[in-house]
Amino acid sequence: MNVVTIERKVLEKNDAVAAQNRQTFQEHGIAVLNLVSSPGSGKTSLLERTLEHLNSTLRVAVIEGDVQTDLDAQRVARFSVPAVQIVTRGGCHLEANLVREALQNLELAGLQLLFIENVGNLVCPSNYDLGEAAKVVVVSTTEGDDKPLKYPAMFRNAAIMVINKIDLLPYVDSSADTLSENALRINPALRIFRTSCRTGEGIAQWCDWLRAQVPGR
Amino acid sequence: MNVVTIERKVLEKNDAVAAQNRQTFQEHGIAVLNLVSSPGSGKTSLLERTLEHLNSTLRVAVIEGDVQTDLDAQRVARFSVPAVQIVTRGGCHLEANLVREALQNLELAGLQLLFIENVGNLVCPSNYDLGEAAKVVVVSTTEGDDKPLKYPAMFRNAAIMVINKIDLLPYVDSSADTLSENALRINPALRIFRTSCRTGEGIAQWCDWLRAQVPGR
Repeated sequence: MNVVTIERKVLEKNDAVAAQNRQTFQEHGIAVLNLVSSPGSGKTSLLERTLEHLNSTLRVAVIEGDVQTDLDAQRVARFSVPAVQIVTRGGCHLEANLVREALQNLELAGLQLLFIENVGNLVCPSNYDLGEAAKVVVVSTTEGDDKPLKYPAMFRNAAIMVINKIDLLPYVDSSADTLSENALRINPALRIFRTSCRTGEGIAQWCDWLRAQVPGR
Repeated sequence: MNVVTIERKVLEKNDAVAAQNRQTFQEHGIAVLNLVSSPGSGKTSLLERTLEHLNSTLRVAVIEGDVQTDLDAQRVARFSVPAVQIVTRGGCHLEANLVREALQNLELAGLQLLFIENVGNLVCPSNYDLGEAAKVVVVSTTEGDDKPLKYPAMFRNAAIMVINKIDLLPYVDSSADTLSENALRINPALRIFRTSCRTGEGIAQWCDWLRAQVPGR
């Protein structure tokens, strides 16, 4: 029981800081998306293709969350956007206070879009509000089409699902349609995109939607 | 600090129960492997191909751990092996006491090999000893070859790595050699297998190794 009580306190404290973050984002008119997924679903590749496609038409920044290494921040920084790496040193998810600290390293004035790439983990990050406008769950076609049923909290708490690596569909036994159906069973309001970071398919539609999220545009 | 102290107590308690489990397994001469990975790396498919290949030449049982659903236990049970499903209801990893409870539903006498398929999560299960002889980390080629660097604890605590979905290597940008090198940088003692559950490549070598793990054979 002790552990459950402590966990509730941790979540309450997190929610309070997340509310502060959200207010900060709203004051600056920044659209903030929290990217969540299994390890290796292609969150960073999606960011790379997104930054390439947006091609500096929006002022974008990225906060990278990883258990270890700053490999992802390095990849993203190549696109000349401000990138801050949070290393959790074993921690399985980002929390709102880590994001709040990371914000001190970003110039918020004039920023329009902020991506927070969470630790690759389809379980723990689902409980933690970071102050984002929405969670975007990225699922690759190679993970199988049953993931929404097996990890329902993440799909319930996300507003958007990106089905990534659709170029690999001919070579795997899973179906993007079944994946979508399973996800909509868990969360009928989920908005769904299909992308391939290798071929570029679907990136334009995803970026059109991103542009529409920026306040005042 | 409170949370860290509680976590240490949870881990100590877990280790004590894991030691009991280990003693139980040793008394019955059962080789026990704890399969860990990202969601969708193919742990259950690997079990299916393994059970098919072993073709009842060993007495095998499976404990399935999932956040939700008994889909995996159903898949495994088709191969006429005893299968027990643990549903963690949101919990991000298996703990030794859950395995201990699951054991009450298995006939241990005569059992030779027990697979415990953990929750799909490359972070949290690394800290939890279940009483297994070894952790087997399964990584699919589609997850990218940087995973050992980004999630080092899991690769440090595993004794075996199975690189799965090698049939997809021609279609992805990651290299099995680089993945192996990165993993061996984290854990030079790691034993590595390469498998494809679609083509069956590597399954025989993996099963030969499994047979050699059974005590007294």
